[in-house]
Amino acid sequence: MPTISTVAPATTLLARFHAVRQATMHLIAPLSPEDLMVQSSPDASPAKWHLAHTSWFFETFILGEFVPDYKPFHPDFHWLFNSYYNSLGEMPEKKLRASFSRPPLHAILAYRTHVDAAISTFLEKAPEEEAVRRIVLGLEHEQQHQELIATDVKHALFTNPLHPAYTELIGRREPETMAPPQDWVNFAPGLTEIGITPDPAALEAFAFDNETPRHTTYIAPFQLATRPVTCAEYLAFIDDNGYRRPELWLAEGWSTMRADGWQSPLYWRRDETTTSGWSIYTLKGFQPLEALSETPACHLSFFEADAYARWAGCRLPTEFEWEYAAVQQPFNPASGNFIESANLHPTPATSRSGVQQLFGDIWEWTQSGYTGYPGYHPLPGALGEYNGKFMSSQVILRGGSCVTPASHIRPTYRNFFGPSTRWQFSGVRLAKDAAQ
Amino acid sequence: MPTISTVAPATTLLARFHAVRQATMHLIAPLSPEDLMVQSSPDASPAKWHLAHTSWFFETFILGEFVPDYKPFHPDFHWLFNSYYNSLGEMPEKKLRASFSRPPLHAILAYRTHVDAAISTFLEKAPEEEAVRRIVLGLEHEQQHQELIATDVKHALFTNPLHPAYTELIGRREPETMAPPQDWVNFAPGLTEIGITPDPAALEAFAFDNETPRHTTYIAPFQLATRPVTCAEYLAFIDDNGYRRPELWLAEGWSTMRADGWQSPLYWRRDETTTSGWSIYTLKGFQPLEALSETPACHLSFFEADAYARWAGCRLPTEFEWEYAAVQQPFNPASGNFIESANLHPTPATSRSGVQQLFGDIWEWTQSGYTGYPGYHPLPGALGEYNGKFMSSQVILRGGSCVTPASHIRPTYRNFFGPSTRWQFSGVRLAKDAAQ
Amino acid sequence: MPTISTVAPATTLLARFHAVRQATMHLIAPLSPEDLMVQSSPDASPAKWHLAHTSWFFETFILGEFVPDYKPFHPDFHWLFNSYYNSLGEMPEKKLRASFSRPPLHAILAYRTHVDAAISTFLEKAPEEEAVRRIVLGLEHEQQHQELIATDVKHALFTNPLHPAYTELIGRREPETMAPPQDWVNFAPGLTEIGITPDPAALEAFAFDNETPRHTTYIAPFQLATRPVTCAEYLAFIDDNGYRRPELWLAEGWSTMRADGWQSPLYWRRDETTTSGWSIYTLKGFQPLEALSETPACHLSFFEADAYARWAGCRLPTEFEWEYAAVQQPFNPASGNFIESANLHPTPATSRSGVQQLFGDIWEWTQSGYTGYPGYHPLPGALGEYNGKFMSSQVILRGGSCVTPASHIRPTYRNFFGPSTRWQFSGVRLAKDAAQ
Amino acid sequence: MPTISTVAPATTLLARFHAVRQATMHLIAPLSPEDLMVQSSPDASPAKWHLAHTSWFFETFILGEFVPDYKPFHPDFHWLFNSYYNSLGEMPEKKLRASFSRPPLHAILAYRTHVDAAISTFLEKAPEEEAVRRIVLGLEHEQQHQELIATDVKHALFTNPLHPAYTELIGRREPETMAPPQDWVNFAPGLTEIGITPDPAALEAFAFDNETPRHTTYIAPFQLATRPVTCAEYLAFIDDNGYRRPELWLAEGWSTMRADGWQSPLYWRRDETTTSGWSIYTLKGFQPLEALSETPACHLSFFEADAYARWAGCRLPTEFEWEYAAVQQPFNPASGNFIESANLHPTPATSRSGVQQLFGDIWEWTQSGYTGYPGYHPLPGALGEYNGKFMSSQVILRGGSCVTPASHIRPTYRNFFGPSTRWQFSGVRLAKDAAQ
Repeated sequence: MPTISTVAPATTLLARFHAVRQATMHLIAPLSPEDLMVQSSPDASPAKWHLAHTSWFFETFILGEFVPDYKPFHPDFHWLFNSYYNSLGEMPEKKLRASFSRPPLHAILAYRTHVDAAISTFLEKAPEEEAVRRIVLGLEHEQQHQELIATDVKHALFTNPLHPAYTELIGRREPETMAPPQDWVNFAPGLTEIGITPDPAALEAFAFDNETPRHTTYIAPFQLATRPVTCAEYLAFIDDNGYRRPELWLAEGWSTMRADGWQSPLYWRRDETTTSGWSIYTLKGFQPLEALSETPACHLSFFEADAYARWAGCRLPTEFEWEYAAVQQPFNPASGNFIESANLHPTPATSRSGVQQLFGDIWEWTQSGYTGYPGYHPLPGALGEYNGKFMSSQVILRGGSCVTPASHIRPTYRNFFGPSTRWQFSGVRLAKDAAQ
Repeated sequence: MPTISTVAPATTLLARFHAVRQATMHLIAPLSPEDLMVQSSPDASPAKWHLAHTSWFFETFILGEFVPDYKPFHPDFHWLFNSYYNSLGEMPEKKLRASFSRPPLHAILAYRTHVDAAISTFLEKAPEEEAVRRIVLGLEHEQQHQELIATDVKHALFTNPLHPAYTELIGRREPETMAPPQDWVNFAPGLTEIGITPDPAALEAFAFDNETPRHTTYIAPFQLATRPVTCAEYLAFIDDNGYRRPELWLAEGWSTMRADGWQSPLYWRRDETTTSGWSIYTLKGFQPLEALSETPACHLSFFEADAYARWAGCRLPTEFEWEYAAVQQPFNPASGNFIESANLHPTPATSRSGVQQLFGDIWEWTQSGYTGYPGYHPLPGALGEYNGKFMSSQVILRGGSCVTPASHIRPTYRNFFGPSTRWQFSGVRLAKDAAQ
Repeated sequence: MPTISTVAPATTLLARFHAVRQATMHLIAPLSPEDLMVQSSPDASPAKWHLAHTSWFFETFILGEFVPDYKPFHPDFHWLFNSYYNSLGEMPEKKLRASFSRPPLHAILAYRTHVDAAISTFLEKAPEEEAVRRIVLGLEHEQQHQELIATDVKHALFTNPLHPAYTELIGRREPETMAPPQDWVNFAPGLTEIGITPDPAALEAFAFDNETPRHTTYIAPFQLATRPVTCAEYLAFIDDNGYRRPELWLAEGWSTMRADGWQSPLYWRRDETTTSGWSIYTLKGFQPLEALSETPACHLSFFEADAYARWAGCRLPTEFEWEYAAVQQPFNPASGNFIESANLHPTPATSRSGVQQLFGDIWEWTQSGYTGYPGYHPLPGALGEYNGKFMSSQVILRGGSCVTPASHIRPTYRNFFGPSTRWQFSGVRLAKDAAQ
Repeated sequence: MPTISTVAPATTLLARFHAVRQATMHLIAPLSPEDLMVQSSPDASPAKWHLAHTSWFFETFILGEFVPDYKPFHPDFHWLFNSYYNSLGEMPEKKLRASFSRPPLHAILAYRTHVDAAISTFLEKAPEEEAVRRIVLGLEHEQQHQELIATDVKHALFTNPLHPAYTELIGRREPETMAPPQDWVNFAPGLTEIGITPDPAALEAFAFDNETPRHTTYIAPFQLATRPVTCAEYLAFIDDNGYRRPELWLAEGWSTMRADGWQSPLYWRRDETTTSGWSIYTLKGFQPLEALSETPACHLSFFEADAYARWAGCRLPTEFEWEYAAVQQPFNPASGNFIESANLHPTPATSRSGVQQLFGDIWEWTQSGYTGYPGYHPLPGALGEYNGKFMSSQVILRGGSCVTPASHIRPTYRNFFGPSTRWQFSGVRLAKDAAQ
């Protein structure tokens, strides 16, 4: 699968910079300039815009601030490719991004090259600490947009009535391994430390401001499922009239589901030509559900995850329970199903014991609303808008997905989306209170 | 002020039942049958509907279940006045309540009388424990609707282009006492117990399921303001361009505020005839802001509360901090500004020391999203829909307001509304992290 | 049926004034103050508002302009009860009329009495010609609102989930007479004069400005159906999948019908308890379709009327064809099924020969858009807003309905509504090109 | 201006076919594949879709029906590129056209080539009469889409925040000639024949079904302006508060204008850097209003045209008056400002006497709603959906514009759009009743 590059462990920041930037280019390799224009939902952006905006981030927050004689690539790009930083001035409405046929793709690629060269030159001159921190932030930012490119392109191609694939399946798909039966792991109660307090000396270590500061929390005893809910399990919920029983749903979920006509996860459709009666659209095209039945169900909203959990007599974990469990596991990003594995879809759990698949495969919905940790303070200046201003009506997801770059994830990483969001690779891991 | 009855401490459940039911009738005394028809926003219901629905609650959950030969008042009322209990079957859309000119008011009042008589008879026969618990729940439910009648009627009368008052101001309004300067109270860190685990033997004791179970939480050190933010203080925020500075607002708040054209709290309007340049609509009609400047600001959304706190260099408390502080105060409902005081508006803080006005005056926005406590389980059956299904996209408020019945409030009481809600008497108490 | 007064032929303008004003009061007699509050659609107004607005019209355009010392009933009513006359200043949004619980009904009735007395006094003093013309206009205006009260109240009561009747059916309904088979009448081509040029000397004669001036039009030969389409005939269209065949519909009709979920005329509903499988809501409650099968179908939009005509291989008449035919018929309002007959619903055609039921029963959709006649000029001043400003996106209806006052109708009368309007008593009379 | 080809008078249908098809290709020459993807409003389609749909029309209505062994280019295109012909089956929602990144542009161009070859081969074999008629219809259809490409691309480029030009202005713009003062031409009353009855023998003559049949109409005496209203004249309307005076507007226009925030024609914007204070966006980029002041004002809605006429003490002509006047003028398409002139914008009237600029420059709004002529019948089959089903809520425009192909226009040609449409090159020619 040549389109997804592996980010090799980089020995220098410069090497890491080029590896991350190149990974973005690899990601768009299978796409045409026309594909890069599509904006198929208000949540999404055209991939071309992501290419420009990630370069804008470096230009705005590093080159424009730390390189005295830096000459911007284009006089209009500073406002044209601003996403949501009100402190920097007016910007185009998000929905207008679909009209950006100009600048043409080749100009955007030239913009990337211009920025890459300037950052490279800058890095050779031993930049000050704050600049290094900003470059690291810019790389993490770019990795977030790599994931968005994957999810936005998936939605764009699916919206096309022809439903083209992003990359083709190669060869006959192997029969799926069976996921092991779901089991439970007990966690003892106690005080624990959640989050990170960054070490100012470790320049290239990284955590977002919303993961800070590290603070004390009390955890009641609980149980966590050994693996996420699979498609086969989720199908049983559907077949048991899960989408027609109001007692299983949050009131807001019930009304959203009915208003939007949900009858299954996003990307599932009835298909009489398959054994299961369902097909699932993946970045490699439609596949019969039976070929994916042991994989974690994905593209679920929080509301569906919550309804499933209630149907199963369980609940979703809190983000603190999740982190408490996660820090007790060995964390080896290289072994997870991240974007570098090029599966571009969750894969079945294997038979190892203990809690599996916490990292990669699917983002796991928690029951926790997105708020600041005790003592939280956003970054100063415009970068303070990066995370803090979204702390309302959002729900925390943890662990990364099959389209997240492996090097982007930490046990303390907090992702967040509105509770009706479905275009991300989001699924369910069950939890329950400790057996009495 | 004869329209608001005082609920005298009732020595028996029967006496309490009649006192609460009568309080509802007192509340509508100043209103005409036409006033009781108005539904001026999707959040609100006509007061006439509240009269019927509270009776429906007793009929459905007590008389229909525990009185074998109970004869319903009207064969259609069981579905007509259902609010949101899907388990009980279909019900009219909320917006249709404005079309309920029939049954006429006198039929609704007859319905109330019918239910009152049946409950009275039932109570005389030493009902079983669960029935007693349900009657207590019915009374708490009715008190919630008393508050809603006050807030819905306020909105209805304000929506009328003539802006009539609910009751008139009597006499010349006294010059306001000055509220004492805001000060801070420090709270030490530690483990604490939050919520209530009900004592099954105390039949008439009461807590909603969402206040249970009592559970351990760790509280970091923090400071809490001695009193809520006043109108004068909030005006300083407006005058400092608070509604025009995106850096002060959550992203969702900024877009909501701009889309809805907010430039001040609900019920404030520019008025060149007053000294302050503003008038505020109250249940007693418009009053110049200067007459209310020392009263707690109210009818703020969570977004405004949060923006104000950021502007002031502070933050909102969590609901746990709030409760932690509240249980350390003497709780004397009789001394608070609740509906029985007939002020129908917040009043200024007095000069007592320590944390004041935690109970009554205004609901205080916290920064906590509404979720279930560890080990939370909804009530069984249809009553399980009472609270649990609203646990998404809502924010917790604490302490009761000037239109809450005093006997309805507890330190553990959790109210919840969406973050853009403004028609409740909701305001701000500031918090901040402990001084280093 | 005592609720509908007969407007006796009035010998004086004063007598006519009182007769018309009294007819409005008779119309609301079966309704409660609560009924008069309901506004169940954006098209409709509360009946109470109609009571006030019709008085406002006399106060604004006659008393305020021609009676020098006239003292308005209330200082706010001049803007509160303005409907859409922008020239007179700002007015409340239409949707706010549902919030007018104050002024109370008794104040509105006192307003009517006040205006009645002032007009009576004024009329005794031999007013100038223009004032007389205005009073006549005010009476025609009031008659229009009488029809609106009937249609708005019907919609309001139907919207109530209990579907109460406006008046009850008295006694067992007689078996319906059979309507005679539909036949065709031929009309020869030629130049004709359409509309009216008012005689300035005939003060009390009346036509709206949109009926003027009389002008020449050429009419091609055509055929007109002897009677309107009946419910039985319309049912055949439904049973032939009329609502599922796009080729029968205008594009805008097809998308409106699908978006709004139309499957039958307004007020029809499936009812397994009836022989026909349908019931129809009337002002006298639901009746089985079979009891109304020979009556003209009503509450059809233009789109449904047009689709039916296409299905029947015919078309709708132009308004000029309609008038050309109408002026060739004897016009005897007393013999038509107007509001005075108290049927409040269309009745079957009888077996007389020739074109029947042109006047009364149902408004007949034409295919003509609403535009000004050649040489049309609106009235000067604010009254110029009465008709002229609605000349876009509206379709002409002719002939009056079973809730139109008989004395309000003329062969030249032009009614107009948007093509998706269904809450009026509107139906279909077929036309076709002359047989070759 | 090399991008607009001149359609040379074609001596054969084959030559004409190639000329028209080639003209479409010339039109997109200045655009990139990305430009062809943009769909900037619900009215518009991506230019790429127009390229495909016009080929689909030939494939569906000629090759598929008349060429027995025709092999479609792609099995999905028959539904993918259907616009609105319900009789042919389901089709994608219009708004999805923005997601058609696949098939890629080169596949669409191959589709065009495939169809071109098949039609060429077919034409060489002396096809039957109906097939010839269909090919002519297909060419007229393609010409309509050429105009839509111009208007949709203009809107797309304007929507881009950078506002790029479609083609650049070459050289210094010449000082504008002054348009002659507007004068009036009198037309006598009388019976006239409107429309066309096609001659079945003239295979290649063409008129749309909505121009038929020719029929008699009576015309009252009227006056028609010698030329359209200019930008300078329209600016006087704006400066006289035209957009703030409700008495000038139809009610629907007033509410539309306020809801959408219109303060000038589409594509005008305030610009302090120009003498006039305004700039106007054209297909050649922004130009100061003063450079265009003598050109006919364009991109006006019917509502603005009507309000302007009322402000000027005039009215819009009926479509019959327009045609009555037009057939009395010499009609020489070659002399008009059509798309072949490559101005791509209206040009000033010259000083010739009589009625000028009836053809080309701007579509002229009439006051006539779009309905069928007496005796009108749509084409049989799916082609019956071409025109007839749009006969509601649309207003007639006449005469063609600066982006209409010259050979596409006739004096009887009826264009139609909704009254709030502004993205077409639509303007005003005044009319008034004959002087008394």
